[in-house]
Amino acid sequence: MINFDYKNPTRIIFGKGTIARTGSVIKEYGGTRVLLHFGGGSVKSNGVYDTVLKSLQAAGIEIVELGGVKPNPRLSLVREGIQICREKKIDFILAVGGGSVIDSAKAIGVGVPYEGDVWDFYAAGKTPKKSLPVATVLTIAAAGSEMSWSSVITNDEGALKRPLDVDVIYPVFSVLDPETTYSLPAYQTGCGIADMFVHVFERYFTAVKNVDLTDRLCEAIMKTIISNAKRVLVNPNDYNARAEIMWAGTLAHNNLVGTGRLGDFASHMIEHELSGFNDVAHGAGLAVIVPNWMKFTYRHDLPRFVQFAVRVFDVEQDFHNPEETALRGIKALRDFYTSIGMPATLSEIGIHEKDFKTIARKVKKFDKEKGTVGNFRPLTEADVEEILTLAK
Amino acid sequence: MINFDYKNPTRIIFGKGTIARTGSVIKEYGGTRVLLHFGGGSVKSNGVYDTVLKSLQAAGIEIVELGGVKPNPRLSLVREGIQICREKKIDFILAVGGGSVIDSAKAIGVGVPYEGDVWDFYAAGKTPKKSLPVATVLTIAAAGSEMSWSSVITNDEGALKRPLDVDVIYPVFSVLDPETTYSLPAYQTGCGIADMFVHVFERYFTAVKNVDLTDRLCEAIMKTIISNAKRVLVNPNDYNARAEIMWAGTLAHNNLVGTGRLGDFASHMIEHELSGFNDVAHGAGLAVIVPNWMKFTYRHDLPRFVQFAVRVFDVEQDFHNPEETALRGIKALRDFYTSIGMPATLSEIGIHEKDFKTIARKVKKFDKEKGTVGNFRPLTEADVEEILTLAK
Repeated sequence: MINFDYKNPTRIIFGKGTIARTGSVIKEYGGTRVLLHFGGGSVKSNGVYDTVLKSLQAAGIEIVELGGVKPNPRLSLVREGIQICREKKIDFILAVGGGSVIDSAKAIGVGVPYEGDVWDFYAAGKTPKKSLPVATVLTIAAAGSEMSWSSVITNDEGALKRPLDVDVIYPVFSVLDPETTYSLPAYQTGCGIADMFVHVFERYFTAVKNVDLTDRLCEAIMKTIISNAKRVLVNPNDYNARAEIMWAGTLAHNNLVGTGRLGDFASHMIEHELSGFNDVAHGAGLAVIVPNWMKFTYRHDLPRFVQFAVRVFDVEQDFHNPEETALRGIKALRDFYTSIGMPATLSEIGIHEKDFKTIARKVKKFDKEKGTVGNFRPLTEADVEEILTLAK
Repeated sequence: MINFDYKNPTRIIFGKGTIARTGSVIKEYGGTRVLLHFGGGSVKSNGVYDTVLKSLQAAGIEIVELGGVKPNPRLSLVREGIQICREKKIDFILAVGGGSVIDSAKAIGVGVPYEGDVWDFYAAGKTPKKSLPVATVLTIAAAGSEMSWSSVITNDEGALKRPLDVDVIYPVFSVLDPETTYSLPAYQTGCGIADMFVHVFERYFTAVKNVDLTDRLCEAIMKTIISNAKRVLVNPNDYNARAEIMWAGTLAHNNLVGTGRLGDFASHMIEHELSGFNDVAHGAGLAVIVPNWMKFTYRHDLPRFVQFAVRVFDVEQDFHNPEETALRGIKALRDFYTSIGMPATLSEIGIHEKDFKTIARKVKKFDKEKGTVGNFRPLTEADVEEILTLAK
């Protein structure tokens, strides 16, 4: 286990009927003029928007609306939000939606008190020192942004997708009502599940040794996701299964299970360039990349892949043939993704061999000198191209 | 899963060499005049006290010392600490020690800004609204108080031990260096392990249904405790095993694994009266009570006891005889306690049949009307006496 400095101050208000409390809780934290940030029509058609609006009005809160957040949220809308917050003297931001809306709200939050351009934080290595308070009402179980220090924004010019990880963007509180996810289309539910699974997966595949407890916590979350994914896809209104998936999605990325270890995150970095390139749903892109990342990488630490197969997918261990056990684990994950409606190849998501070099070049490198991405087994651009070729 | 409202703001600074940072981190949080609260000689003989002192001095912090905290920390010393903090205008409390020292510090913290008597919070149902900031340097992995909202104090008059659970007593930060636990006597290490195990155990045994994720998280922590307990007792200087035990002990009681469920906690309440009565080490008392609580209770929800046996202790399931599987799980826990040097009977810890009625009467009742304690299977005074008799 390596040393760590961990804190997660986000408050979670979880369960049926909790959205009606949003306004009064914002008042607890001193919010009076709120930017209500959201995406398209789904929060309006499923009733969440109305419930939030009534709750804010009942608490006597002034509201300025900014909708229109798209998947892979755009820098241009973030800049517009920053402008509005300054003009209207907004003192609190409420994101109603999934990860894209929350990430956009976080970017606006750090942009408002900053004199320079907010893109500095994502692409130029600047660190924000403060943020307007941001709260969330979550409507998609996927990104984990509701309890994370992460925000990912896409720069419209150049299709560059970049993450920011910093303490000041933890939401003040997040309201999680599993019933809001009943109306999600099956494909979107599947993408969310694929995404949250990989948040744990990328922490699980670590080069750090002696990480028993966090290994087991990761396995607990992955197993819960697998068993409940089937339930929500068979019956989208299964409250208990939706609740398990929603809380699992949050804990997958709140970084508790990453304490004392160093995750990989190469698959995330590769996928960011797929969706930056072609607006692929993040979960779908990950479902294509991850099993091929595994095929490329498994010989690097065979015992860990055997442990994954046996403990996460209940693969019966062949003690005389660890490689076969590892490969059966990779196949089990591939089959799981297929069972939740995820694509298996890059061509299915409209990405072709001619683009592989460009994508590999654009992937954010962790080690600038060596030009590699990922911590478990650092990948060169050639390695990334090979993984893309396996996934074609 | 039931609705919940969860937050845990405590920052954890974990690993080798982290104690030297204590002073500078206190300064980050604005501390200038610190009450340095500790127990007996062990923190002085193992060097922790000196490291803390140097770190505070280097940060230019003024220090007022208050040592002498005993296991089952006493109200009288808490009152003394409150007096000192007021006189010396202390603005920050640093607890250096185990759960008793931390619980005592928390009590002082809420007592200082309160006009009445601090015992009101523990015994008269009053709720503290604020606290002096409290930080901790942990030297015993056991109570989980370093990241919890709990404090347990014993009133010297009447030997009454009472808990307080409230938001304002979460420590601001806690420093956890596993190396500080190398010098603990084996018996104390064992008591700590018994204690942390039961923190998870009491959340695990819930009457709430559909709690997949938190079940699995509880199992992850319990399995980690079991496997690493053996390692630290064989080799007390095994850093990796000490680290697993220390982080497991914290997560066992920071209430994350209790989200969406309602724990039992009858065994804790019974044990509090044992140690209030006879200064029994808390973990040792729990090791006596818990297996007998299980024997008394297992028919109430046999599938949960089978799940415990199979998933936590790897008992091979007899599908045709769930009762036998459950009983083998109880025996496995009893054997585990014995393997870490814990007592099995009340007589071994100096508590005898003549005291059972008094103890049962003193146990704090959750349901005052029905006179019962515990949530999984509420116990009457007669039930508690029966458990004590099983444990005699």
